Amino acid sequence: MRKGISFASSLLTVIYLSIMEKIDFVVNGTVTSPQGFSAGAASADIRKKKDNRLDLGIISSKEICEVAGLFTDNKIKSPSVILCQKRVLEGKARAIVASSGCANASTGEQGFASAIEMSALAARVIGAKPDEVLIANTGVIGVQLPMDAIRAGMKKIVMKPDGGHDFERAIMTTDTQPKEVAVTVRSGANTFTIGGVAKGSGMIHPNMATMLAFLTTDASVTPAYLKKSLQDAAAISFNMISVDGDTSPSDTLLIMANGLAKNELITGKSGMADIFQKAMNQVCIFLAKAIARDGEGATKLIEINVKGAANLKEARQAARTIVSSNLLKAAIYGNDPNWGRVTAALGRSGAQVEEAKLDVYAGKIQVIKQGIHVPLDRTKAVNVLKQKEVPITVVLNMGAADATAWGCDLTEKYVEINAEYTT
Amino acid sequence: MRKGISFASSLLTVIYLSIMEKIDFVVNGTVTSPQGFSAGAASADIRKKKDNRLDLGIISSKEICEVAGLFTDNKIKSPSVILCQKRVLEGKARAIVASSGCANASTGEQGFASAIEMSALAARVIGAKPDEVLIANTGVIGVQLPMDAIRAGMKKIVMKPDGGHDFERAIMTTDTQPKEVAVTVRSGANTFTIGGVAKGSGMIHPNMATMLAFLTTDASVTPAYLKKSLQDAAAISFNMISVDGDTSPSDTLLIMANGLAKNELITGKSGMADIFQKAMNQVCIFLAKAIARDGEGATKLIEINVKGAANLKEARQAARTIVSSNLLKAAIYGNDPNWGRVTAALGRSGAQVEEAKLDVYAGKIQVIKQGIHVPLDRTKAVNVLKQKEVPITVVLNMGAADATAWGCDLTEKYVEINAEYTT
Repeated sequence: MRKGISFASSLLTVIYLSIMEKIDFVVNGTVTSPQGFSAGAASADIRKKKDNRLDLGIISSKEICEVAGLFTDNKIKSPSVILCQKRVLEGKARAIVASSGCANASTGEQGFASAIEMSALAARVIGAKPDEVLIANTGVIGVQLPMDAIRAGMKKIVMKPDGGHDFERAIMTTDTQPKEVAVTVRSGANTFTIGGVAKGSGMIHPNMATMLAFLTTDASVTPAYLKKSLQDAAAISFNMISVDGDTSPSDTLLIMANGLAKNELITGKSGMADIFQKAMNQVCIFLAKAIARDGEGATKLIEINVKGAANLKEARQAARTIVSSNLLKAAIYGNDPNWGRVTAALGRSGAQVEEAKLDVYAGKIQVIKQGIHVPLDRTKAVNVLKQKEVPITVVLNMGAADATAWGCDLTEKYVEINAEYTT
Repeated sequence: MRKGISFASSLLTVIYLSIMEKIDFVVNGTVTSPQGFSAGAASADIRKKKDNRLDLGIISSKEICEVAGLFTDNKIKSPSVILCQKRVLEGKARAIVASSGCANASTGEQGFASAIEMSALAARVIGAKPDEVLIANTGVIGVQLPMDAIRAGMKKIVMKPDGGHDFERAIMTTDTQPKEVAVTVRSGANTFTIGGVAKGSGMIHPNMATMLAFLTTDASVTPAYLKKSLQDAAAISFNMISVDGDTSPSDTLLIMANGLAKNELITGKSGMADIFQKAMNQVCIFLAKAIARDGEGATKLIEINVKGAANLKEARQAARTIVSSNLLKAAIYGNDPNWGRVTAALGRSGAQVEEAKLDVYAGKIQVIKQGIHVPLDRTKAVNVLKQKEVPITVVLNMGAADATAWGCDLTEKYVEINAEYTT
């Protein structure tokens, strides 16, 4: 009887959602798309190579924001991450300052002092208190922040209501494409926007936040729900991508919510929670896929769908292990239909597998049936691999849990980029 | 008081060992160096490319042997591995048959029938019972063994007392160098020999046996000690190498001991156990390093020494994680002194780390001191990286546990090889 009722009420919700709620991509959306946010960037020439590119930026809100953050689980964290984590715990902020070129990691007490000073300098630019500024740095590890350059650069920053694109460029390192997006949610009388920017593109691997990503929203959200929805969105987006298995001491994901949309406050229990989560997921998955697609040296996005795992943990583990396999990544780069590399990675993933139940599909073509390789129409299989997005589906038939992970192919270019990064 | 006694007695053992016991490398040593073993190989043209190279081989002993084995922990095991595991459990064998070109993995019941037939064919060549023959196959996954070719090839095999070198060539796939060794142990009146061969060189990663390796010995050893000493030697050799993080469904390590050296039976408690273990370790580490050095596309051997970890498990985990980092491997390939990649990998290894206690050395040059990067004499650091063997030492100062892992650099050539393996 209970089942019947809950079915009916969830059906009702779906109808309600489809009529009353809408999520739309904002044209040229970025972190300054939500109301009340501005951003600015400058060149501080933090890199050794003095090429005058943008490498220092600030996002700020005219009102104080609720904030939530997720950070690297690497045991060696940068002083900037440690400072940022502490400030996020305090729960409120007005701005994020970020730079590229130097990670401020493995820099000890001097690095910690630099992080404090850098956030204070940014606070002065926007007229906030120093501890209202969150911080993130990306770049080479083991080098101190060039504070003279940062002091000079900070003076050049002009905050603009459409400055999100400049900010995005300032956090890029080996990224070849900017990664930014915004969606607007209309739900009854309520309208709000979520924007986001991210940078990859090496040292990217599942296990919290795996890169820099900053989200902004003008939605009015309780701190508790903001945190939960960020965690839930990260679990199916940033935590499901891999470029090379390496996490960095700087990985940071932040969200600032300033409430200027004046929507009905979203709590975990409110009807709007679902649509807020959907919009968060959409923004985070968009950015995560953009990071995977733009992995160092990548030519293709790989999507691994695991279906029918015994439980969610194993589904995610399997998807991430397969998408991280160097051998598979290299085979996909070479358009080589070597499905044994899918099963080899699956078999070491820790997920429960019964070979005789296993089906594998490349695109819509079944390549393994009940554990046995299906005689190939090689041309068809190669054609799937030649696409810019290569979807592989692994059906375990062990349970009901599904997960998707994204990664990229492994190319000579990846090696080239990483063989000469500091030089 | 007890401490004093045990110190004195262990001192005594060392002196006794140094006078009475000796381990020497055998010139051109291989699996047929121990008494009573012969081997043979033939070309069965198992590969699609009909290039007439050796790809089918047998090692046999004139007397029945005690055997021990360790196998892949990948959940998808080849039918050959399943059959071999079963026969090793029975405890005795006379021969090993192996082939390259086709892994007989993901081949289901037909693959199991092929494994049974292939071992029966080998048994006929050497005049043994079918279930006295162990089996291993390496090569492409998902393809059935070409049994006609194998039947024909088997007829061409001639067993020779110095056939180990041919056998070794028959198991090579993308290996560029054969990997074989033998050591002779003299201990008082006892003399015995241990020989070994192995093949790499992709899909190589810690977690049992990570490749094919076959050991032979004429030593007389109890089955229980043979098994234990194989496990102990594998833990510090084959389980401490990584080429690319991938384990295969075919990984197999086997030892056959025929007792023909007529030495005093070695048990876990006998005085000879120590020297037997030392010799086993020497053979296994030699082969493991040879596999790492010859990783697909590799130009260098990387050696990661972790010292002062909180416990042995963490020491091993840290060493293996660092040696497996794509970013570090690419940096070492490019002679790029990017020590942040060592600490980034260490930080995600799961080992307890306190950054302020951490010292890192490249060769003998200290590059990180108490967590902070030491200002570099870049030329000196680059010179360490330019060596054919690059030793990096990570001192955690958290406890007393040490471990060493070996791997190789990541090169464009690795990508090239693996982008076109089946084509």
